[in-house]
Amino acid sequence: MTFRATILTLYPEMFPGHLSTSLAGKAAARGEWSVEAVQIRDFAEDRHRTVDDTPAGGGAGMVLKPDILAKAIDSVAAKDKGDNRPRLLMSPRGKPLTQARVRELAAGEGVVIVCGRFEGVDQRVIDGRELEEVSIGDYILSGGEPAALILLDAVVRILPGVMGNVLSGTHESFETGMLEHPHYTRPQVFEGQEIPAVLTSGNHAAIEKWRQEQARKLTKERRPDLLD
Amino acid sequence: MTFRATILTLYPEMFPGHLSTSLAGKAAARGEWSVEAVQIRDFAEDRHRTVDDTPAGGGAGMVLKPDILAKAIDSVAAKDKGDNRPRLLMSPRGKPLTQARVRELAAGEGVVIVCGRFEGVDQRVIDGRELEEVSIGDYILSGGEPAALILLDAVVRILPGVMGNVLSGTHESFETGMLEHPHYTRPQVFEGQEIPAVLTSGNHAAIEKWRQEQARKLTKERRPDLLD
Repeated sequence: MTFRATILTLYPEMFPGHLSTSLAGKAAARGEWSVEAVQIRDFAEDRHRTVDDTPAGGGAGMVLKPDILAKAIDSVAAKDKGDNRPRLLMSPRGKPLTQARVRELAAGEGVVIVCGRFEGVDQRVIDGRELEEVSIGDYILSGGEPAALILLDAVVRILPGVMGNVLSGTHESFETGMLEHPHYTRPQVFEGQEIPAVLTSGNHAAIEKWRQEQARKLTKERRPDLLD
Repeated sequence: MTFRATILTLYPEMFPGHLSTSLAGKAAARGEWSVEAVQIRDFAEDRHRTVDDTPAGGGAGMVLKPDILAKAIDSVAAKDKGDNRPRLLMSPRGKPLTQARVRELAAGEGVVIVCGRFEGVDQRVIDGRELEEVSIGDYILSGGEPAALILLDAVVRILPGVMGNVLSGTHESFETGMLEHPHYTRPQVFEGQEIPAVLTSGNHAAIEKWRQEQARKLTKERRPDLLD
């Protein structure tokens, strides 16, 4: 099955962006996933191809018009034509993206992502088209496009076959609910610092215990919220 | 002053990525900021240009070698040559990126960003070169490069002159400590739903009060952690 991403955006030229390189790009070339960027402006109805308007109630910025965006969504991802992919809206107001949600999305048939620009998107189309607002973090980006690229990067790397055995058996941050332990490799001495002796002891139980202790200590220091 | 970003990566072709388009690209063309991607592999010392090695203590994946990475950092961002830019390492183990940190970085002269790949980076070079580990969110990416693009996107958009008056006067999520209120624009009726009457009342005090109430309600529902 091919994982199919459809992006609704005013900047289709931003896709596939960095996803055309590296393992994600090779997987796309093999047909394991695809991304199609659709220009929202193509659904405008006037000769100026207007997609936004001033906010009701006043204020700075512009708001994406509900009628134009609804038409775009209905054209590329109509539920009544059997398209049941989740519809996301990248937004700093959204629910924070987690690795658990990434795994759920990767297990599905694909995703439809609306990229906001301007001040925001009319609330009635968010409600009417059941858009799930997703945030990738507590900072403000130039638009939803970079956030969509991040979400796709996270999802595509865990699709079956994409990274092959690169992933197999790795312990990763969040997969265990804790941050990862420190890593070391050769040389044995770097600028006077040795690799911790336990790691070169050959005692696998002691190594595993040390790593778990380090992971717990680091998580407690940096991200106590993850231990709650 | 030009904000100068130097990226240490095994995939220099990923930069400037989406930052070459839109307002960020225009600002770079005007010389308001710059990004240089440096290939870590150019600092390898053997004919295979090896940059990684197996983890001490065993386990899956490979670890970026401390000696090679240190040489790369010293070559492009030597503190003893007066380069005082913050040195970041994009990593899911890092401190979560916030809009406050984005503002601090944007007020500085630039940034050096190390992009991890493989299982991780040798802890001794993180310590020895004072790399500040930064996470853009609780999910796993294919590498540090997409995360670096996000950090740069967030920083570049608030550099003086980059987005011009697009930003002036906008209320944004996180700038006020709360998620943003809902937005509406024409048409007055969309699929049977009207714009909330208060927004078309012309009563500016009532509009402001409604927006603050909505922002508080939304933040309480979705992100109670922000209200603490």
